[in-house]
Amino acid sequence: MKIVECVPNFSEGRREEVVRAIVSAIAGVQGVEILDYSMDPDHNRSVVTFAGGPDAVREAAYRGIAKATELIDLNQHRGQHPRIGATDVVPFVPVEDVSMDECVQLARELGQRVAAELKIPVYLYEYAATCPERKNLANIRRGEFEALKGEISRPDRHPDFGEPRLHPTAGAIAIGARGFLVAFNVNLGTNDLSIAKRIARTVRGSTGGLVNVKALGMRLEAKGIVQVSMNLVDFRRTPIHVAFNLIKSEADRYGVPIVGSEIVGLVPQDALFEAAAHYLRLNDFTRQQVLEVRLRQASGAGGR
Amino acid sequence: MKIVECVPNFSEGRREEVVRAIVSAIAGVQGVEILDYSMDPDHNRSVVTFAGGPDAVREAAYRGIAKATELIDLNQHRGQHPRIGATDVVPFVPVEDVSMDECVQLARELGQRVAAELKIPVYLYEYAATCPERKNLANIRRGEFEALKGEISRPDRHPDFGEPRLHPTAGAIAIGARGFLVAFNVNLGTNDLSIAKRIARTVRGSTGGLVNVKALGMRLEAKGIVQVSMNLVDFRRTPIHVAFNLIKSEADRYGVPIVGSEIVGLVPQDALFEAAAHYLRLNDFTRQQVLEVRLRQASGAGGR
Repeated sequence: MKIVECVPNFSEGRREEVVRAIVSAIAGVQGVEILDYSMDPDHNRSVVTFAGGPDAVREAAYRGIAKATELIDLNQHRGQHPRIGATDVVPFVPVEDVSMDECVQLARELGQRVAAELKIPVYLYEYAATCPERKNLANIRRGEFEALKGEISRPDRHPDFGEPRLHPTAGAIAIGARGFLVAFNVNLGTNDLSIAKRIARTVRGSTGGLVNVKALGMRLEAKGIVQVSMNLVDFRRTPIHVAFNLIKSEADRYGVPIVGSEIVGLVPQDALFEAAAHYLRLNDFTRQQVLEVRLRQASGAGGR
Repeated sequence: MKIVECVPNFSEGRREEVVRAIVSAIAGVQGVEILDYSMDPDHNRSVVTFAGGPDAVREAAYRGIAKATELIDLNQHRGQHPRIGATDVVPFVPVEDVSMDECVQLARELGQRVAAELKIPVYLYEYAATCPERKNLANIRRGEFEALKGEISRPDRHPDFGEPRLHPTAGAIAIGARGFLVAFNVNLGTNDLSIAKRIARTVRGSTGGLVNVKALGMRLEAKGIVQVSMNLVDFRRTPIHVAFNLIKSEADRYGVPIVGSEIVGLVPQDALFEAAAHYLRLNDFTRQQVLEVRLRQASGAGGR
């Protein structure tokens, strides 16, 4: 069954009635399931996670954007998190039987419609980006709403869809396609933050470690220990267990034990199947050997 | 969604048209999916694995039994595997949102109907057993079809359902409820069979090892190595990774490496999730964190 996940971020993290109205607009599309939503008052930002078939998810994303455009005025918005729009970013994520190319296509179709019907300029990012500089969201968001107002008329900052001027209240939107992001934290049995920071440096791609891994060392005050906090942005190429094993061997080198770990939010089943197959040394393991996977395929086959 | 697995064994492993007819009879029930079937000519026996909702699975099991009764004459049957009936054993296995008690109830209902309508005596076994001696299938099958003909009239061998005499061609049937069986084999980097046998002895419950684990040491001639071949009969209480780690530490003691392992047939997703959570040291992990589990619950919730 084709499943796409979508994780729009909206520039409202304080007025719950606004976020609820946006979530309701998204949930109103048949075939879409809200998996989670959260509000952050400091960032003044909310994140909605939903999933479903490609068409339903694209339609639901549009309705969420339309509702946010109605209810959020970015001229009144203050918060710590950088943003360019009332709806700030909309990533499509392939989950099941869907390719990255299909998600790129969804991003383009949604971008075109948003520009045409809501008059909001749209930038395509990550896998949907139209040039290398726009792969990275930070480049698109440079200067935020306030600076982009003037800069959008410069050719290098022209949007991919829509006219080169911001929507007066809703700003602009970055729409893209990306891999599933696994938030994975490993706790170390020490209160020495410098060890967590050094291990994070060894593990993350930006400083010579694993590609597709972002990592920070941080303190867990309440527990009196430190943590290597990671985002794994492509768990199929850089699996969870590879990151874990690298942290383990680095921690060993400092004589520090791993005292536990956690996945924040959701993790695709394949990531856990791969980890189990790795540690149990399963040769030639495939997800076809998983009872529930087979059952769903069998029952899904009749429905298609 | 309620899912029950059923794994009937039929006393025919040579005539493919007979096995196909039985499989077709089972597959004819709506809501039932055939997951696998296999024929063994030496054992002259076939094993069909199917699953679905409780009512559909019970009905499909009945139809399979009825078809086997029609097509198999146990008086003509020769094979290595002990058996008492044309349909020899029918276990119901809880898979999802179903308790063992519900599977015991399915076994009773099916047994009653088989005795009443097909005139085949039925013994209940494992979790469905009506006395401790009948938990073990080997006790029920003692002497097989040929000896049971005479002994069935003895009170201690009276069936749980039906008259105390065998069906003239179909014999008797053992119907029961049991946990999911995971077939898990670990390969050792040695050709010394005695090491595999010693490790098997340490690991299996019957000789002092782990309860719910059956284990044998055997030779893999083609590969020139040996294997500890296991059945894990209750993976929730005695997880795969516990068996694996015990084998690993025993193999270390003999200085022998583990060179791989395999799951034969199907494995429930929870067994792999548990293994991943163990090795990745995930604190407080629940299947609710698995994207696909959450998606199915969300979409299933509307349908109930």
